[in-house]
Amino acid sequence: MRIALYQCPPLPLEPAANLERLQQRAAEAARRGAALLITPEMYLSGYNIGLDAVSALAEARDGAWAERVAGIAREHGIAILYGYPERSADGALFNSVQLIDAQGQCLGNYRKTHLFGELDNSMFSAGDDDYPLLELNGWKLGMLICYDVEFPENVRRLALAGADAVLVPTANMEPFDFVCDVLVRARAFENQCYVAYANYCGGEGQIRYCGLSSVSAPDGSQAAVCGREETLAFADLKRDTLEASRASITYLKDRRAELYGSLA
Amino acid sequence: MRIALYQCPPLPLEPAANLERLQQRAAEAARRGAALLITPEMYLSGYNIGLDAVSALAEARDGAWAERVAGIAREHGIAILYGYPERSADGALFNSVQLIDAQGQCLGNYRKTHLFGELDNSMFSAGDDDYPLLELNGWKLGMLICYDVEFPENVRRLALAGADAVLVPTANMEPFDFVCDVLVRARAFENQCYVAYANYCGGEGQIRYCGLSSVSAPDGSQAAVCGREETLAFADLKRDTLEASRASITYLKDRRAELYGSLA
Repeated sequence: MRIALYQCPPLPLEPAANLERLQQRAAEAARRGAALLITPEMYLSGYNIGLDAVSALAEARDGAWAERVAGIAREHGIAILYGYPERSADGALFNSVQLIDAQGQCLGNYRKTHLFGELDNSMFSAGDDDYPLLELNGWKLGMLICYDVEFPENVRRLALAGADAVLVPTANMEPFDFVCDVLVRARAFENQCYVAYANYCGGEGQIRYCGLSSVSAPDGSQAAVCGREETLAFADLKRDTLEASRASITYLKDRRAELYGSLA
Repeated sequence: MRIALYQCPPLPLEPAANLERLQQRAAEAARRGAALLITPEMYLSGYNIGLDAVSALAEARDGAWAERVAGIAREHGIAILYGYPERSADGALFNSVQLIDAQGQCLGNYRKTHLFGELDNSMFSAGDDDYPLLELNGWKLGMLICYDVEFPENVRRLALAGADAVLVPTANMEPFDFVCDVLVRARAFENQCYVAYANYCGGEGQIRYCGLSSVSAPDGSQAAVCGREETLAFADLKRDTLEASRASITYLKDRRAELYGSLA
């Protein structure tokens, strides 16, 4: 399955413009054979926008944005994973991502569980114990958001549930290149799954984003790796690579859950 | 605290020769200011030696080898962490490491808990739920052996118990450079502790070892990194680096244990 990552600078407070460029990238990604397009974290609204803006912009998971993204997905025949600020039925605000398939159906929604510092905590409530595993074109997919993937426990729980790939919209900033260069590659190898990490580049307020989006393979290689500039990157998730790697690297079988009681 | 890693080719089935070169390296390491010398896995006997040889050579943790290493430690005033095949009181064989302090006292012994493939499983029983945390010169130290460190759960449990540094005698072989290049660095960063990884170079039977021993720091840097050749490498563990890094990277505080039930 070919996937595309849209590494871009944020367009804060411009959902219409973000939907417009999503439309353009979805067209290009589909034309070039991708079955799935992944955007960065909080793509539709921008990320470093403050509580007032999040509160003014946030939508329900089945709101107008979801309808518009579903329309783009249907029009171009490509699944889309996008980040957005979600307002729940009881009014709480979440840093969320949603996966819409190529027929415009919502496959699942995930609320960031591990909030990053003052930036997240000033805007969002943390997601609960709900890490849905979805299926797209025969691939079992987990979703995480940015800081979530830096905790080995989160990718592990998805891998134990059977994830073939973990999709990670992110907004990783300087000075945390290490996360892009080392940590996400470790997650793919140690869990024997793909990890697709779609970051921003450019800046937003005082923040400079790292770029360096990537798709890490279970065998330690990288199926895609970006620089610091805006780009639409492509990677092929290969069943053969996954199975061959899992046959020789057997962490999930060799782990000893009975020794890990202090972690939970 | 300055530490030294002895990256060397194995001398299989030659404990006397291994003790002799340990004596020489301990003298050099102490002269150059190290408080601790770390050898690779199964250093005293060699690693890829088969069950019959392990069974013939294995000693109790307080046997003649331990006495000899204690003598070397006392003579040069340096603590030594060494790998060896251990025979327990009831006759079981373990892939073990033992830490002897500069006064010749045993601070702790650890039996490899995660056995690697046919190689380990054909020779050893797996260690139980006993991951001792030791203190040396004010540093809290955990111990793991080779394959153990590749499981994020093992370093995490030591970090949660308070480890400042995790010491890892290893025998990591081709084609697993990825473990040296990426995985051990991730462990240090994600747990905010040092990870000292002392590997073999050269070969042993059909095995080619990776070398690439290292000391990874909690801030993502490497305090030491070796090539493929025999070397005595030095690194300084710095309290300032550890505390500054922990103040800005707060994974241990931000993790959500209530979500990790499926791991244990």
